[in-house]
Amino acid sequence: MRLSRYFLPVLKETPAEAQIVSHRLMLRAGMIRQASAGIYSWLPLGFKVLSRIERIVHEEQQRAGHIPMLMPTIQSADLWRESGRYDDYGEEMLRITDRHKRDMLYGPTNEELITDIFRSYVGSYKALPLTLYHIQWKFRDEVRPRFGVMRGREFLMKDGYNFDLTKEAALHAYNRHLVSYLRTYERMGLQAIPMRADGGPIGGDYTHEFLVLAETGESEVFYDSAITDLKFGDRAIDYDDIAECRGVLEEFTSRYARTDETHDEAKFAEIPEERRRSARGIEVGQIFYFGTKYSEPMGATVTDETGAQVAVHMGSHGIGVSRLAGAIIEASHDEKGIIWPEGVTPFGAGVVNLRQGDAATDAACDDIYTKLKAAGVDPLYDDREERAGSKFATMDLIGLPWRVTIGPRGLKSGQVELTRRKTGETVELSPDDAVARLAEIYAAR
Amino acid sequence: MRLSRYFLPVLKETPAEAQIVSHRLMLRAGMIRQASAGIYSWLPLGFKVLSRIERIVHEEQQRAGHIPMLMPTIQSADLWRESGRYDDYGEEMLRITDRHKRDMLYGPTNEELITDIFRSYVGSYKALPLTLYHIQWKFRDEVRPRFGVMRGREFLMKDGYNFDLTKEAALHAYNRHLVSYLRTYERMGLQAIPMRADGGPIGGDYTHEFLVLAETGESEVFYDSAITDLKFGDRAIDYDDIAECRGVLEEFTSRYARTDETHDEAKFAEIPEERRRSARGIEVGQIFYFGTKYSEPMGATVTDETGAQVAVHMGSHGIGVSRLAGAIIEASHDEKGIIWPEGVTPFGAGVVNLRQGDAATDAACDDIYTKLKAAGVDPLYDDREERAGSKFATMDLIGLPWRVTIGPRGLKSGQVELTRRKTGETVELSPDDAVARLAEIYAAR
Repeated sequence: MRLSRYFLPVLKETPAEAQIVSHRLMLRAGMIRQASAGIYSWLPLGFKVLSRIERIVHEEQQRAGHIPMLMPTIQSADLWRESGRYDDYGEEMLRITDRHKRDMLYGPTNEELITDIFRSYVGSYKALPLTLYHIQWKFRDEVRPRFGVMRGREFLMKDGYNFDLTKEAALHAYNRHLVSYLRTYERMGLQAIPMRADGGPIGGDYTHEFLVLAETGESEVFYDSAITDLKFGDRAIDYDDIAECRGVLEEFTSRYARTDETHDEAKFAEIPEERRRSARGIEVGQIFYFGTKYSEPMGATVTDETGAQVAVHMGSHGIGVSRLAGAIIEASHDEKGIIWPEGVTPFGAGVVNLRQGDAATDAACDDIYTKLKAAGVDPLYDDREERAGSKFATMDLIGLPWRVTIGPRGLKSGQVELTRRKTGETVELSPDDAVARLAEIYAAR
Repeated sequence: MRLSRYFLPVLKETPAEAQIVSHRLMLRAGMIRQASAGIYSWLPLGFKVLSRIERIVHEEQQRAGHIPMLMPTIQSADLWRESGRYDDYGEEMLRITDRHKRDMLYGPTNEELITDIFRSYVGSYKALPLTLYHIQWKFRDEVRPRFGVMRGREFLMKDGYNFDLTKEAALHAYNRHLVSYLRTYERMGLQAIPMRADGGPIGGDYTHEFLVLAETGESEVFYDSAITDLKFGDRAIDYDDIAECRGVLEEFTSRYARTDETHDEAKFAEIPEERRRSARGIEVGQIFYFGTKYSEPMGATVTDETGAQVAVHMGSHGIGVSRLAGAIIEASHDEKGIIWPEGVTPFGAGVVNLRQGDAATDAACDDIYTKLKAAGVDPLYDDREERAGSKFATMDLIGLPWRVTIGPRGLKSGQVELTRRKTGETVELSPDDAVARLAEIYAAR
């Protein structure tokens, strides 16, 4: 993309209303604009990041064998009355009356709707195991929306639901989700620690939250520092292998790691003192096993091998897709701006022309820009007539992980500069080598 | 995807509530399920089709230089009061009161919100031309939702907005949209005819609707049959070339083609009698140029070259994304079920195992399935223990354009069958040739 033809409204001033760094940087980098309290438009740069996050979530869910679909945003109140949650949910539920005076609502989650779909079609254990998921906008009418997309009212969430014949099978689904989430967050450059959590209004004894450590996190967390050494990495995993998935769960949850809701001072004290940590964390996902909590009242049963009717065992599993855009920035920025991990960066590299209007420099920039596009790097070319300093500041603010700088002086000796945003480290190399280096970095993504 | 692990709840009976063929077939093929009146869940097969339609729309919009972003579903009423449309819009607007008693609404369209974004950031003609678009769920509280996704209440739409300094520049944006829409529909296997239309509540003198001819269309249309010979095809187009885009508009709009709203009997009578046609059509898109209708009341102005403040010239351009899934079926089906064009088919080919459980046949099926996946064909392998007839009926119903049939008899002579859904035409060939043939068909998509 050529910046002269893009829409990237970066702000010079820091907006007064933004209290945390991700909110400030998303506004300044022209990623989002508030439409009304807690509701945002995703400007082109923000939408690109959101789409990349969404794509990673889709890929990892499908790798785990989970099946994508899409439920609507507006639901009928009837199903929520059936599960008993319509009255429980309180003022956070956005309640709507349509023109025929029917009670509707903007879905904050989808246990009822998915259970209704399941019971309408599935009658036999032979259709199990089954995990369906979708990525859809949700609404929670927060009394005080704040922190930008981190605690908005309209937000994008992946929510998945497993249906299994037995508790054991459902716990395998739980473990499978844990593994797929570890992979998902790592691909986004995040370390998200699974912590034992509280069931809350969704319910359930088995539940883990995934938390990214960050000073601005809303949760207080307590953990054994040994847990931060764990990495899933690029190990192979067979999602059908029950023991293998359980092994990963045990590896990642055997160390003490809890939020303040489930914190146990006595257990915490058992950790060697030098490994005890308390910090703040941002919740970016949660998995639940809740058994027959919805299937029983809603009659989601199947016949088992003996012909008996049994209520299916379910769980639900969420990833905060729009919130992740903020969480990644909280975890990865400096005083100059955002530092995108390669997995979610809106553009793979920035191309900065130091002397716009100089025929040779323009030609060299056009050439490298074309080659980067062909190599799948998806470059952003700053072809505006601006000072070099201003171009660098924009690239630093929007946080592209790599920058190619091209000017008449370097071109004389056939060199361009390749700079890494994270470290500022710069190497000089030929334009073709710069393209090859970047192509290699992005080839695996 | 292996069917034994998929969620494809096909129905044997034709649902009584469905009045038109696309609605019946979408229900029977397990593509959608009604969540409440006019609101649908997109089951896995339906979601795949919807995603493919969405991807084509994105690709063609970006090819034309239009920039993707995303506005929220819930809007504040304030902006609509500013444009004067809050009271005009009537009962079709889903009005919502949030917990702080603020008037909100579920956006039926986005002229106000995008104009607000524009005026907040853009102050100079130098940022023009600019076209922003998004694909987002909309809500129109239809008094009698019907025909499945064709006239639902919650529906997915692509809406794009151009901002230009002059009327001439805005009309180029209009023409550019017309060209990109022709390409978009053709890629979906549709012939959509641009017809002169009525401005309606969005307003504007320049507006064309795109209509797909189909008996179940809600609009009566009148046209010169010569128009159905026109094809955009794979001609190259330079979207920056004003004359070239205008040429396409002239080519595709010079013949008489109107809906009943703008029909002119006298003009129609001028067409040679043998070319006069009246038929029914489904509206799948509309483009508008409306000048300064929103920019003036909302103060969306820029300074021009002389330093004067001028209101920008705008247009808006919509494609009914979810409705297209239904429209494509209306245009392409037979008594056995859907016939997907290759551009939007949920799976590239079906693989039918005629003797599930037979070791050699299973192995041959696994092999061809794996090779088709590797070749990017995205096959659906019916690996269930069902009779051949039932497997064929399912494949015909869900409408995959190609089917590979594998059984012990053919395998003895090293052959499988490749059948084209549209014609029933079958050829015998080696498994590798079948893979190569399908890979070639889908390579260009």
